[in-house]
Order: sequence, then C-alpha cells, then structure tokens
Amino acid sequence: MNSPTQDIDFNTLSLRRALDMIAAGDVSPVDLINAYYDRIDAREPEVGAWHYLLSREQYLQHYQQHEAFYKSSLLQGLPIGIKDIIDTAAMPTEMGSAIYQGRQPVDNASCVNLLTKAGAIVPGKTVTTEFAYFKPGKTCNPRDLSRTPGGSSSGSAAAVADFMIPVAVGSQTAASVIRPAAYCGVVGYVGSRGEYSLRGVQPLAQSLDSLGLFARQVEDIELLRSVLLQQPLAPAAKPDRPYRILVCKGSSVGDSDPAMDEALEQFSNRLQQQGAEMIEMHSCDLIRRLVEHHHKIMAWEATRNLTHEAEHPEQLSEALQQLFELGRGMARETYMDSLETVAKIGNWLWSNPDHQDVDAILAPAAPGVAPSGQTATGQPHMSRPWQVLGLPVVTLPGMTDEQGLPLGLQFIGRPREDDQLLTLARWAETTMS
Amino acid sequence: MNSPTQDIDFNTLSLRRALDMIAAGDVSPVDLINAYYDRIDAREPEVGAWHYLLSREQYLQHYQQHEAFYKSSLLQGLPIGIKDIIDTAAMPTEMGSAIYQGRQPVDNASCVNLLTKAGAIVPGKTVTTEFAYFKPGKTCNPRDLSRTPGGSSSGSAAAVADFMIPVAVGSQTAASVIRPAAYCGVVGYVGSRGEYSLRGVQPLAQSLDSLGLFARQVEDIELLRSVLLQQPLAPAAKPDRPYRILVCKGSSVGDSDPAMDEALEQFSNRLQQQGAEMIEMHSCDLIRRLVEHHHKIMAWEATRNLTHEAEHPEQLSEALQQLFELGRGMARETYMDSLETVAKIGNWLWSNPDHQDVDAILAPAAPGVAPSGQTATGQPHMSRPWQVLGLPVVTLPGMTDEQGLPLGLQFIGRPREDDQLLTLARWAETTMS
Repeated sequence: MNSPTQDIDFNTLSLRRALDMIAAGDVSPVDLINAYYDRIDAREPEVGAWHYLLSREQYLQHYQQHEAFYKSSLLQGLPIGIKDIIDTAAMPTEMGSAIYQGRQPVDNASCVNLLTKAGAIVPGKTVTTEFAYFKPGKTCNPRDLSRTPGGSSSGSAAAVADFMIPVAVGSQTAASVIRPAAYCGVVGYVGSRGEYSLRGVQPLAQSLDSLGLFARQVEDIELLRSVLLQQPLAPAAKPDRPYRILVCKGSSVGDSDPAMDEALEQFSNRLQQQGAEMIEMHSCDLIRRLVEHHHKIMAWEATRNLTHEAEHPEQLSEALQQLFELGRGMARETYMDSLETVAKIGNWLWSNPDHQDVDAILAPAAPGVAPSGQTATGQPHMSRPWQVLGLPVVTLPGMTDEQGLPLGLQFIGRPREDDQLLTLARWAETTMS
Repeated sequence: MNSPTQDIDFNTLSLRRALDMIAAGDVSPVDLINAYYDRIDAREPEVGAWHYLLSREQYLQHYQQHEAFYKSSLLQGLPIGIKDIIDTAAMPTEMGSAIYQGRQPVDNASCVNLLTKAGAIVPGKTVTTEFAYFKPGKTCNPRDLSRTPGGSSSGSAAAVADFMIPVAVGSQTAASVIRPAAYCGVVGYVGSRGEYSLRGVQPLAQSLDSLGLFARQVEDIELLRSVLLQQPLAPAAKPDRPYRILVCKGSSVGDSDPAMDEALEQFSNRLQQQGAEMIEMHSCDLIRRLVEHHHKIMAWEATRNLTHEAEHPEQLSEALQQLFELGRGMARETYMDSLETVAKIGNWLWSNPDHQDVDAILAPAAPGVAPSGQTATGQPHMSRPWQVLGLPVVTLPGMTDEQGLPLGLQFIGRPREDDQLLTLARWAETTMS
C-alpha cells in the first residue's frame, strides 16, 4: 500500500517539516539520513561542498550508538554542516589553508556544542575560502557548476542549496554568508553583531565577525536561533500596521547589474501589492562610503588577528597578503576614523526622520548572479555597509535572471532586532515564491 | 672594580629600564633571566603565581638556541607571564578547571604570537580563577600571604608584584585585571573593548571581555601596547591645558571602605595641587545601576559561551553554576534591556555638559585593601560600571592603608582613547609615589 508521503523528495524538506514528519511517524531519521547521503554520493564529486565528511556508515553508526538520545532530542540526529573555520573536536578544522593541514582543535566551538546537544549531528566540515577571506576552495555553484558558489561560506551554501543537508552554519565578516546564499539560491541569515557566541569560530575582524546560518526556509533559521540562544521558539509578532521598508538601490552602493536592479524593483512592487509601504532611501552616498570604511577596519583588525598566518607569506594568497600589507601600513588614526565615521552613519540611519518606524531595508544581496569561473567568489560590496553597521540580515531566494540563475535580495534589520527581521522575512518569503 | 649598576636589584626594574640597560651593555639578558628565576625559586612556593612554569634550564636553553634572534629583538628574550585562559601552543592551557586538565591548544593566541615575535619569552602560565570567574586558584597576595591576590588574573598580578617577572598579560570581564592589580600593588591596564585581538583568549562574555596588562610602570604598558597594535611607540601628547578629571566616589558605586575613601580624597587633592581640575561626579546613581546590568549581561553571555563546561556541573564551582542558572533562566528581553540601558548611560556620561572636555574619571579600583583569606577574590563592583561601558582603564599603585597594604585607584578613559589615558596615567604616576 502506498503511503501518502512516499512521493515526497525528502531532501527538499525544510528541517522543521522533516522533524514534523518524524514526529508524525511518516519518515524515520535513518531514511532522511540515507536520502541526504544519496544526494551527497551523487553530487559531491561535482559540487565539492565538503572539506571533510563522515562516511554514511560512520554517521549511521554514531546515530545508532546514541539512538535513545537522538530519538528524544529536538533535532533527531539530522545533519548540520559546519564551515571549516569553526572548531570541531571530532574532526579537523583547516580553515581553507595549507598552513593548517591536519589541524585538530581540542574543543568544539560553542555553536557546535549547542546544536549537537540539541540533537544535530555534524556530518562534516564545509569548504571555506582561505581564512574566510577571498581565495576560493573547490566548491562549485550547484545551480551552474561553471560558476562560483560565492564565499567565504561556500560549502555551507552549496550543500544546503543542493539538498545534501537541510541547514548549515557559516560566518560573515564582509559578505561571506549573504553572497553565497544569494548565488546558490538559499536563505542566508547573519546575526546581529554580539548576538551569538563566537567562541571557537576563528576570528578575522572583531568589529565585523558575525555568525550565520543557511537554510531553505526562514522557519529553520528561527528554529536554529532558538537553539543557539537557549530560548523557546517564539517568533516575534507581525506589527499590526503595514510593514515600512526602505529600499536601497544597488547602484547607490556600487556596481549593480541591470538584472539585479530589475529584480529589486519587481520584488519591491510585489511587497507593495502585499500591503507594505515601500520608501526609497535617499542620501545613499553615506551608505556607499561604508564600503571603504569596512575594508579599512577589516584590514587593520585581520592583520592583528592572523599573526601566525602572516609569518607564512609563501603559503598565503596574494589577496590576503595585500590585506595584511594594507593593515600593517595603516596608522591607528585611519582605523579609528573609519570606526567613528561608521558610528555616525549608523546614528544617521536610524535617527533620520524619513526612516522613522522603518522595519527593514531591502537591498540587493550581490551585484547580480554568480559570476562564471572558480578563481574568485564575486564582489562583496553589497554586504559591506550592513556588516560594518553590525545589523542582522536575511537574504531570500526566489528571484532569477532570464536563465533562471538566482538573484538574491536581502532584508537588513534594525540593530539586535533579529526576531522582528525573521518574522518579516517569513512574511516576504511567501511573496517571493 | 665595582660597576655602578652592581647594586641595582634587577628584579625591580621596569621592562623598559631593563632593556635600556641591556642596550647600554650594563646587564645581559641572561643575568636578568637568572635574577627573575632566583626570585621565583625563593618565592613561588609561598606565592603560587604559576600554574605551569618552565624550569630555569628550559628557559635558558630556549634562549640560547635562538640567541641571535633574541639579541636583535625588541624585547631581548625577557619573560612575560600569560594568564592560563590564553591559549599557548607550547604549554597547556587549563583555565583553572579540572575539566581541562592536560588541555593542550594547537594554536597560540594572537597576543602571544605578537609578543613572542617581538622577542618576549613565555616562562609559563599564570594562575587564573575557574574560567576567569570567581573560584580562586592557589595564588596568595605577595604583600600579605594571608590575603587574596584578587582575581581572575591572580597569578599575573602576583608574579609582577612580587618581582618574578617584569610584565604579564591578563584579561578582564568584570574586575579581573584592575582588582588583582589594586590588591597586589601594581599597574593594571584594561584596553578599550575591541582594541586588541582576543583570538585564542577563552571568551566569557563577548560584550565585556577585554585584554589586560600588568606592569610596575605605565611606560611598560605603552611599550607592550605598541607591540600588540604593531604600531611605533609614540605616546600621546599631554594636552596644553590642565587635565580635567571627574571624581567618582566609591560609595556612589557600592560598598567602599573608609580607608579607600580617604585615599581617593588624598590623591585627588594631590592631583589638584599638580594643576589638575578635579570635578565631583553627580548623578552617580546612574553609574551604580550599571553594576547590576553588567552582571545580567555577563550571565546571559557566559551561559551561551561556556556550553561544554555547563555540561559538567559536578566539576564547577557553586558560583559558576549560579551564574549559568541565572543565564539560562533569563529572557532575552532582560538581556536586551540591560544592553540598551548601558548604551543610554554611556551616552549620558559623555554628553553631559558637566563632563565636557573631561580627560578621565578617577575612582576606587576596589572597595578597599585585599580581603583576608583565600576562599574568594574580593568584590568586583568597582570595575563593573566601567567594564560594561567598554572603557580603557589604568589602576595605579602607591596609596596604602595604615598597615601599608595597597589601595588601588583607577583612571577610566574615554572610549578608545587608550593612548591619552596612558599619558595621563604616566603623569599621575609621578604624583602617586
């Protein structure tokens, strides 16, 4: 007899839908795990999302050894990918660099502890660019293998986009979550600065680093957020008035493809039809100025964080060497000027009378679709302004160019209003599809 | 023939004076190293500053193997103590807890890399309280062995105060640098939040953690700061007007001993005699409110950072278990309310017309002298307000009670104005002695 669920492609389920089906007895965790591994077996040779991966047998053996725990857990032993700059005590963490070949941390990052304690299993480490900066790893974009998946959380984005796993963890210092999520066509979320523990996440720049998550539905981000904050899952209420959304055009931040401009306009119109009040952002030159200040802050801080790495220039990419050169040659006043200018622009953004009661900013998540080739991960300028302001961000998939390649748009929330932003993104998600 | 330097007690020299004497050929690094180890041999059994320590032979062997490098280096192979929550690849980092017995990190913290690259040698790891929180280690106060050295950077403060080493690194989340420096009678410095790389420094609370330094002269803090920032040693100029200093009485923050109140008044009068404009701080109830907000922020964040530790309650102190209990039971709104209130009070502090052009705040560094006994490290409330505001702080030794026990006073600087604060502290230091 056919069960009504037999036709469902398990891999495409959101994490929450999969957990619901487990709870209803419609699927077993082992069936799901096998479906994920079937997909990995079929696609990993081409996509290259994983830097380190447990075999199916290792994963299932671990699950079965602790089955009682997983059966009573929130996340039921389902897999979550972990970017390879995030320390794991059970597998190496090599940070996309030959300098750290075979590096085996002695502790788990706190986010790994929290997720595994809630019943997730880490199947492996996802490919990162070199130290979460520019030099790409082996990952290809699952939507078009000839294109970059974006970076630095390349493997986390690609593995979720390609249905190998339901959710993954990444990190963002410039555009490292939002850009790969946009290019691969998945939901990407960057937490407000300071929101999550970064213990065990290798730092790049303390004023910029944020934890990030990848999923195929916003509801999964909310679930993982509740685990990471050890709080009950209680999404914020939708305001009892229309959403007020500030639209920041791509061209006001930097280069922006016509296809992206069109996608932004289309989506903005749709949101307006759904009842949102869409407000064009003026004085975008202030936002554009943040791009350069972000770069300077990153150079100063990265140079003083990656001190061991800087001693091995022969093993570093040219891009990272240039960043260190900029950081070493910089006077502290230049760095402080950038920090101060950023603080002033942040104050302007939220105290401007035109921006009163604004719930979020809508902007392109990248200049366009994923560029061709694997020598770079695309331009980061669309994320730099929001990242240097420390704001929470969600990018949503759904818009595409004429060839069907993803054009990601991002919602930027108010400082530390991650819950409100996720509620807005869940509402907008239905409009996107 | 007697050289004029033969009578100098090498151990009491500041790091900079020792380096000057090496440069002048008046003493060799090996002589200094032997003097430090003589002191350690004589005093360590009673003081207990070290959790892990190289033998004299190991230290000298390392020095001699790399003599060419050290002879051409800034810091000449002299020792710098490192608090045992700061990762070292060459020796264990056990964080004051049985949970991490034998824990051997695979990387150095960035601060360790920067200091050793500049020619410092790490002779060992200094005693910390359990995870830099409350539970004391074995260290006794070198000024009176029956008293606490303060914590959490207990060993770093005691080793410098007892002339075993010239300088040491610590960290502060509540009062972990300023309090032990005050109790042991040395210079303690806490950097502005975000100022230094904390890579490899085990986090307790991301909104509060700062790197700290111990020395016997402010000039050594300036030297180490230049190394940690990879900037030339270029102290800030003294303003061409009298210093304006806001005085915050201890009783307005919390419990304060009469001897401390008297020391504050005396020192304030001396600074006034030296030409400073001393202004009494009003509305100190706002500062007092920060004590409780600091505690709440620490509880929320520490609970989400120390996730592995929380799984081993049987190996945790009662104080830490209570902190986790508070953090786990806290609603995120409570944490956010505290963060917002702190931001508002920070704005008030620097925008208040009475505080215009203020160079620093002068306040007690602790409620009084070091308490008797080794079961606790003293009260942290005198540091909590400034730490939650992320401000740079220097405590100076020199004032004492009737028995000659140290009564530390602290100067609190404006956000990220560490250089200006250190210049002020160097000026005030001459007034203190």
